[in-house]
Amino acid sequence: MNEQASEPSSEKAPEPSSNQGAPIPLCVKVELGARAYEILIGQGLMERAGTLIAETSKPKAAAIVVDENTRELFAQRVSDALGASGIRSAVIAVKPGERSKSYRVYEEVCEAILAAKIGRDDLVIALGGGVVGDLAGFAAASVRRGVALVQMPTTLLAQVDSSVGGKTGINSALGKNLVGAFHQPALVLADTGALDTLSAREFRAGYAEVVKYALIDRPQFFEWLEAKRAEIFAGGAARAEAIAECCRAKAAIVAADETEAAERALLNLGHTFGHALENVTGYDNARLVHGEAVAIGCAMAFRFSAALGLADPAEARRVEAHLAEAGLPSRLAHVPGGAGSLEALTAAMAQDKKVRDGTPTFILARGIGRSFIQRGVELERLRNFLSSELRSNG
Amino acid sequence: MNEQASEPSSEKAPEPSSNQGAPIPLCVKVELGARAYEILIGQGLMERAGTLIAETSKPKAAAIVVDENTRELFAQRVSDALGASGIRSAVIAVKPGERSKSYRVYEEVCEAILAAKIGRDDLVIALGGGVVGDLAGFAAASVRRGVALVQMPTTLLAQVDSSVGGKTGINSALGKNLVGAFHQPALVLADTGALDTLSAREFRAGYAEVVKYALIDRPQFFEWLEAKRAEIFAGGAARAEAIAECCRAKAAIVAADETEAAERALLNLGHTFGHALENVTGYDNARLVHGEAVAIGCAMAFRFSAALGLADPAEARRVEAHLAEAGLPSRLAHVPGGAGSLEALTAAMAQDKKVRDGTPTFILARGIGRSFIQRGVELERLRNFLSSELRSNG
Repeated sequence: MNEQASEPSSEKAPEPSSNQGAPIPLCVKVELGARAYEILIGQGLMERAGTLIAETSKPKAAAIVVDENTRELFAQRVSDALGASGIRSAVIAVKPGERSKSYRVYEEVCEAILAAKIGRDDLVIALGGGVVGDLAGFAAASVRRGVALVQMPTTLLAQVDSSVGGKTGINSALGKNLVGAFHQPALVLADTGALDTLSAREFRAGYAEVVKYALIDRPQFFEWLEAKRAEIFAGGAARAEAIAECCRAKAAIVAADETEAAERALLNLGHTFGHALENVTGYDNARLVHGEAVAIGCAMAFRFSAALGLADPAEARRVEAHLAEAGLPSRLAHVPGGAGSLEALTAAMAQDKKVRDGTPTFILARGIGRSFIQRGVELERLRNFLSSELRSNG
Repeated sequence: MNEQASEPSSEKAPEPSSNQGAPIPLCVKVELGARAYEILIGQGLMERAGTLIAETSKPKAAAIVVDENTRELFAQRVSDALGASGIRSAVIAVKPGERSKSYRVYEEVCEAILAAKIGRDDLVIALGGGVVGDLAGFAAASVRRGVALVQMPTTLLAQVDSSVGGKTGINSALGKNLVGAFHQPALVLADTGALDTLSAREFRAGYAEVVKYALIDRPQFFEWLEAKRAEIFAGGAARAEAIAECCRAKAAIVAADETEAAERALLNLGHTFGHALENVTGYDNARLVHGEAVAIGCAMAFRFSAALGLADPAEARRVEAHLAEAGLPSRLAHVPGGAGSLEALTAAMAQDKKVRDGTPTFILARGIGRSFIQRGVELERLRNFLSSELRSNG
C-alpha cells in the first residue's frame, strides 16, 4: 500500500462554482430518509468532484482510496478537482483484485485514513471498481465509527451495482463479504468517461448486471436493451441512460428493504447459480469473472423456472439470445475448463449464504421482468436440473 | 482464544417460561425508534437469560463472547440458561484486558462467530466488562453486516456506561476506540449479582462513572448518592437503583443524540482530563484504572470551572469530598508515580479526539448537575490551571 498527500494548490485560479458549460448529469435519488442521497451519472464528473461534493457537504479533507490501476488513471484528476475547491486530499492505494478485501488491507486502509487526519466532518472517496468500493466503504463505516463516503465507481459493474445500496465489506476465510457494514454513501459520482478505460471483457461483464435489473422487474427496460444494445456498448447517451435506469431499479429495491430482510434478495437473481460457478472455478478470473458467472446464472434461473413449469421456455431462450448478442456466456458448457461435477456444484450451492434449513433460496421468474423469491426448492429437482444442464452442450 | 460449543440439553425438564418466583428486575427503556431496547437490572438475570431473550427474539444459536475470567465465572451459567430455552451456544474467549481490543483479536472473534454458524436471525452475547462489550459489539456489528447483540455487562463500569448507547470498537495505533460502529444492543441484562465478584478497587472505579452522571445533569441524584453511598457499596436495592438511574441518564442523552453530534459529548465529563492522565501514566492499570482517571478528571473539571469563575469553589470541594468518601482519587497528587510534567499533560490533551482547530472541547459546569459543553477554551488558561494543579499537594 502506498500513500501520497497533496495540499490544495493556493496558486491556481479559482474555478467557477457553477456548472456553466458542463453537461447536466443524470440524477437518481435514493430515498432513505435521513440517509437519502443522489447518484449523478455523466461524462466528466471527476473533474467536477470538488464543486459537486461542496454542494452537499463542507469537508476540509478527503482520503481517496484507489487501487494501483485507478491511481494511475484517475487519482491526480480527482485530487486536483478537490484541491481547486479547497479540499485537502491524501491518496491511499491498495493492490488490485479481490485479495485486497482482507482483514489486513482493511486495517491498513483504516490506519492510513486516520494518519491522513480525516475527521468526522471529512470524507472517504472510493475511486475504483467493486473491490475498492467494498473495502473503502467498510473502512469509512468503521473509522471514528463512521465518516462520510463518496462512491466514484469506475467500472460498469460498480456503477450499476456495488456503488449503490450501502453494502460494504471484506471476505472471511469462510466466505465472501461475510464481514462488513451497511454504510450508505453521501453521494455517488458515476463518471461514464471512466468506462472507456475498461477492456471489452470487463464492459461485457458489467452489462450482465444491467440485463439482470431488466429481468427482475423491468420488462420494458429489457425491450429497450434489445433495441439499444449496440448504442450502449458504443458509449454516449444510451449508455448513461442504461446506467441511470439500473440505479433507479436498485434504488427502488434498496429503499423498500435497506438491510435485505426481504425483497432486496431479488437483486440476487442469477447469483445463487453464479456464486456456485465462481466457487467451482476457484474464483479464477482468467476462466470466469463475476459478471460472466451472473450471465450464466441468470440464464440458468430462467431455464430452471421453465423446467419447474413456472415460465415459458421461449422466455428463457430470449434471455439467452440477448446475452449471446452481448458476447456473454449463458451455459455451463461456456465455462472454460468446464463447470465441475454435479457433486461439486451442489456442494457449492449448499454453502450459499441464503441457505435456510438446508434448502437454498432461489430467485425464479414467471417471465422476463417477473422474478420472485422462492424458498425451499426441493433438492431433487435442483439436482435433476443441474444434471440436464451439465449434459447440455449449449 | 478458545472456543467450546455446547448443545442445548434435550434431557432437562423444560423450565417454566414465566418468571414465577423470580424477583422483578428494574427496567429502563432506551427510546431509539426502530432500534429501541430495554435494559433489565437485577439479581439472577444470567440464570434467566434464555427466557428473557426469548421474550424479544427467537434465535436458534448464540455466540457468547467472554474473557478468560468471565468464562470461568459465568459462561457455563449463561450457556445452561440458553440451552434450557432451546438456544444452542458457543463460547468464544479472549484474553482479559485492553490489548484484546485489536484488529487481530477482532478478526479472530469475527471468524469464530462465523465458524459457530451464527446467522442473521441469531445473536452475539457480550458477557464481561467494557473490553468484551466493545470488541464483541463491533464483531456483532460486522459479521454478516450486523447480527443482534445482547450485552450482559459484569462490571459496574460496563453496567452503567459501556453496555448502554451502542458505541463499539477497537483501538488504533493512533488512539483508543478510533475504529468501530454504532450498534445498539437488542437487550441489556445487567445482573447485579456479578458485581460481587469485583475487587473493591474495580467497584470503586465503576462508581466514579455513577458520580459522573449525577454531576452532568442530576443534582438530586447526587444528593441521593451522598445519602446512600454506603448502601450502594454494600449491595442490594440501592445498588440496583443507582445503576438504573445511571442507565436512565445515559439513555436520555443517547436518545437525544445517538451518534454524538452534540449533547452526547456531555458524557465525556471528566474524560478530557481523564484520558490525558491515562496517557501520561502509559495506560498502566497498576497505577491508574479508567474510573480513577475519570474521578480525578471530574474533580478537575469542577476546579477548572471554579478557576474560570463559572462555578462556586464550594461545589468543587463537595465533589472532592464525595469521591474521597468513596475511596476515589480526586487530585493529580493522588496518581501513584506522579501525573507527569505540564508539557506531557498538555501534549496528551492536544491529542484528544475532541480537539477542533487546536483548542480542546471541555465539559465544564456551573455547579453540580449543571454541566455544559465549552468549545475553544484558551490554551493559556488551561496551562495556568494545570500548573496550579501540579503545584497543589491535595
